[in-house]
Amino acid sequence: MNKKAALIIIGNEILSGRTKEANLNHIALKLVEIGVDFSEARVIPDEEDVIITTVQELSQKYDYVFTTGGIGTTHDDITAESVAKAFHLPLIRNEEAYNRMKNHYGDNLMDVRGRMALMPEGSELIDNPVTIAPGFYIKNVFVMAGVPTIMQAMLETILSKLTHGDPVLSETILCRLPESFLAQDLEDVQKHYPQLSLGSYPSWREDGFQVHLVVRGTDKSLVLKAKEEIENMIMRLEKEFQTKRA
Amino acid sequence: MNKKAALIIIGNEILSGRTKEANLNHIALKLVEIGVDFSEARVIPDEEDVIITTVQELSQKYDYVFTTGGIGTTHDDITAESVAKAFHLPLIRNEEAYNRMKNHYGDNLMDVRGRMALMPEGSELIDNPVTIAPGFYIKNVFVMAGVPTIMQAMLETILSKLTHGDPVLSETILCRLPESFLAQDLEDVQKHYPQLSLGSYPSWREDGFQVHLVVRGTDKSLVLKAKEEIENMIMRLEKEFQTKRA
Repeated sequence: MNKKAALIIIGNEILSGRTKEANLNHIALKLVEIGVDFSEARVIPDEEDVIITTVQELSQKYDYVFTTGGIGTTHDDITAESVAKAFHLPLIRNEEAYNRMKNHYGDNLMDVRGRMALMPEGSELIDNPVTIAPGFYIKNVFVMAGVPTIMQAMLETILSKLTHGDPVLSETILCRLPESFLAQDLEDVQKHYPQLSLGSYPSWREDGFQVHLVVRGTDKSLVLKAKEEIENMIMRLEKEFQTKRA
Repeated sequence: MNKKAALIIIGNEILSGRTKEANLNHIALKLVEIGVDFSEARVIPDEEDVIITTVQELSQKYDYVFTTGGIGTTHDDITAESVAKAFHLPLIRNEEAYNRMKNHYGDNLMDVRGRMALMPEGSELIDNPVTIAPGFYIKNVFVMAGVPTIMQAMLETILSKLTHGDPVLSETILCRLPESFLAQDLEDVQKHYPQLSLGSYPSWREDGFQVHLVVRGTDKSLVLKAKEEIENMIMRLEKEFQTKRA
């Protein structure tokens, strides 16, 4: 069984519409690659009680929890403090984090920057090659920055610490029939392959319908077998569709 | 007090990274406009038990719950059925929905399209001018399509049914100081205005730091007063910063 992960996106700016969320898709693709199942994501406001209860709930429910956002130097950056409270741990200065920032930025503003070195006791650091101030992880919760360039760099260093599983492979088949025309036959194929997940994603182009059919699973030969069955199904249905139209 | 809303994004394709989520930001901006507070969003898989428990939890917690995704014609479209189960209601054919589709598409494929007319007993329809098949709402849960063009059209018809509140106004001030340099002073301003929410969003440009400071609140004169105080604060800090650098 692959490990399961959840993501907590902390940020009023996402819920107010000011900022477009820009990390979820990147994290999703990275987790697929290493065979960790991405089970849930939540967008929550910068409110201490909400962060605490969400961290408590999801860290019990999943193997890994990632958070993005709320680890800067200003008053609305309350993620570290809230995670400490979620685990009933004191918030203390991480000397290694403090020294990294001091070595990089000098004594300048360390009274304020020092705030970014406050972490739950027992935290391990997550490197930040972009702006130095590290993220951290404590128990199964990985606390990352919200700025995409920094988050992406932090995630790279985290991935090697996770238990990798079977990567989920996917094959996509494009088809130009109306989704309703293939629904019944696709369901039959799904029944032949209970270990696989078959998805159907309709969209519209100026010249007509299109549906992307996606086969997903960890067993490559099975995925390819299902793909072939779907391709045969489509050829058969296309003939039927043309006959009906004629 | 403004009404509170949550969004449930139903879709394996978002969690697998195949599709980029494309509705949250639009919904957030629309809710701000009409004065409904957007409190939480969740991305969950196409799994019946997860949809049921999420709908039950959020419909109790918030005034309005929106869902996107999972209302097509294929086997992985299980939102209507799951919402019915969440409220212990039978899933029945909505004759009005059925007839709209039949009138538009003819008898063609109504055995499959009819699936999209299955809704929890007592549901009201949400118009779909794009592809006809309507969404629905039952109690405080509004079930919409996941395809952005359809979702946006459905949302427009929903907004008039919601209790409007005080729109949240926001003012943004751009500043070219490092965030850490203004953190303490900004916190002081926040303390002067407990009714407002002050956010600080740093980013980097090739030519240096920038921070967007955002003042949000429902009282326009207060928002403008806080904005002025922040602008004065920035002018003062810029002088300090130059003095320190000199």
